[in-house]
Amino acid sequence: MSTSVVPGASLIIAWQLKNRRVLLVGGGEIASQRLAALLSADALVTIVAPSPLHPTILSLITQYEHRITHIDRPFLFAPSDIDTVNPVMVLTAISDVQVSREISQLCRTSRIPINVADDPPACDFYFGAIVRRGPLQVMISTNGNGPRIAALVKDRIEQTLPEDVAMAIEKIGILRQKLRERAPDVGGKLGKRRMRWMTRICNEWSFTDLAKMDQNTMDKLLDEGWEQDVILRPRDVLPHSSHFNLTLPPLDNFVAGFLAGICAATALGFIAFRR
Amino acid sequence: MSTSVVPGASLIIAWQLKNRRVLLVGGGEIASQRLAALLSADALVTIVAPSPLHPTILSLITQYEHRITHIDRPFLFAPSDIDTVNPVMVLTAISDVQVSREISQLCRTSRIPINVADDPPACDFYFGAIVRRGPLQVMISTNGNGPRIAALVKDRIEQTLPEDVAMAIEKIGILRQKLRERAPDVGGKLGKRRMRWMTRICNEWSFTDLAKMDQNTMDKLLDEGWEQDVILRPRDVLPHSSHFNLTLPPLDNFVAGFLAGICAATALGFIAFRR
Repeated sequence: MSTSVVPGASLIIAWQLKNRRVLLVGGGEIASQRLAALLSADALVTIVAPSPLHPTILSLITQYEHRITHIDRPFLFAPSDIDTVNPVMVLTAISDVQVSREISQLCRTSRIPINVADDPPACDFYFGAIVRRGPLQVMISTNGNGPRIAALVKDRIEQTLPEDVAMAIEKIGILRQKLRERAPDVGGKLGKRRMRWMTRICNEWSFTDLAKMDQNTMDKLLDEGWEQDVILRPRDVLPHSSHFNLTLPPLDNFVAGFLAGICAATALGFIAFRR
Repeated sequence: MSTSVVPGASLIIAWQLKNRRVLLVGGGEIASQRLAALLSADALVTIVAPSPLHPTILSLITQYEHRITHIDRPFLFAPSDIDTVNPVMVLTAISDVQVSREISQLCRTSRIPINVADDPPACDFYFGAIVRRGPLQVMISTNGNGPRIAALVKDRIEQTLPEDVAMAIEKIGILRQKLRERAPDVGGKLGKRRMRWMTRICNEWSFTDLAKMDQNTMDKLLDEGWEQDVILRPRDVLPHSSHFNLTLPPLDNFVAGFLAGICAATALGFIAFRR
């Protein structure tokens, strides 16, 4: 988080839905995407939509039957499905704009966050393109300038993320937890030293090396590193640490080309000379 | 959005706060970062915190005085500041864990989304690292595995995003708006054709070319492209379109090195031969 202000943004947040009830109104393709996102967030979902449902929804109901309740009819206003289901969040993805807006109005009266597909003014929040790698989630929002260009930015980001980023993040999470147990201080001097030390590990080690940490590595890092307030080098603590890197950066390509050029010219010169 | 489910995630959403009231409890460094994020989202902010405030907060209050109300005292429970301020969201960033948790409890009773800095169980949502480029926002969440590694991923992503991505997104947004005015259908055949055409433009044009579009380019694209259901090429419609690209991809580095190598070897051979 930075302290510079550039107006015109959304507040992007990671909503916690584990075991919390969400009401999804609609049974089509968009609803199937919403359902997948909700299940990834470990939510409990009530789907209100008359059959037939989109095949993906049917298959998700089979896979996650303990998490999904299907009410096989259109949304009911009196008594309202919002009152009976009592959800922490409502998503609608139906073609009837009027019904969606009435649901949105109901939600706002009851202070329940609502997203209406394809109707920004009726929404408290929007969705974006998501890149997921284990514990890492990257969300791309163009603030309403078009889903397709968000998908393009997403493709770029997917290509950039190192292969081992998910594993590196998981391992850092475990190391951080172990360190917290050793030095459980919050906000004080020890807490600050802990943050500094974690920052140095993250800065001085590559994603690849972080991903390779095992229990043994972590214990060594803590026993011999943290206790002395130093950062051990990957090659001193990692098992089977490999320091040979096969991917050549651009400059090495130039050097490789240069050498190949010398060889080629020398060979040609040699042939010409022999003649 | 995809339809694959990988549990253990958050639901990442872009919350709309324009002209909506948020209560921020705390006046330190974390609170200053929260304030900047809220102002970027065009929120109205009530800060409850006794002086002295963090210098960044003081300077933001001066810059955005019409958006910020400062109540110069600790949080009050009876009558509760939540009832009197009536916010759509509450953020706390104070060192008193007990007070934070009581505020969190109050918010949950009133169904007001709450974030308590550094206390995940008391939060309805978390923040992450943010990359901002004009209308583009990219949010990086490691789902609680550490802010430092999120910052590393953020650095990588910042390096990847093309220079002109913000401008490209803005221009696509304008083109999309113009097209919507020509073909205002939602959900029907024309709407689908519109989405297909926008997707093709985004796929076939580079970010650099999209960023170069002016009103004239857009009108041509729509008059001569959309109306015939074709995608015109950048070089046929862009003003002063430049097709010369100075950045060499890695392979060209190899080729350049190869040629340099041939020159070097030939020159050396020539010198040796002259002797």
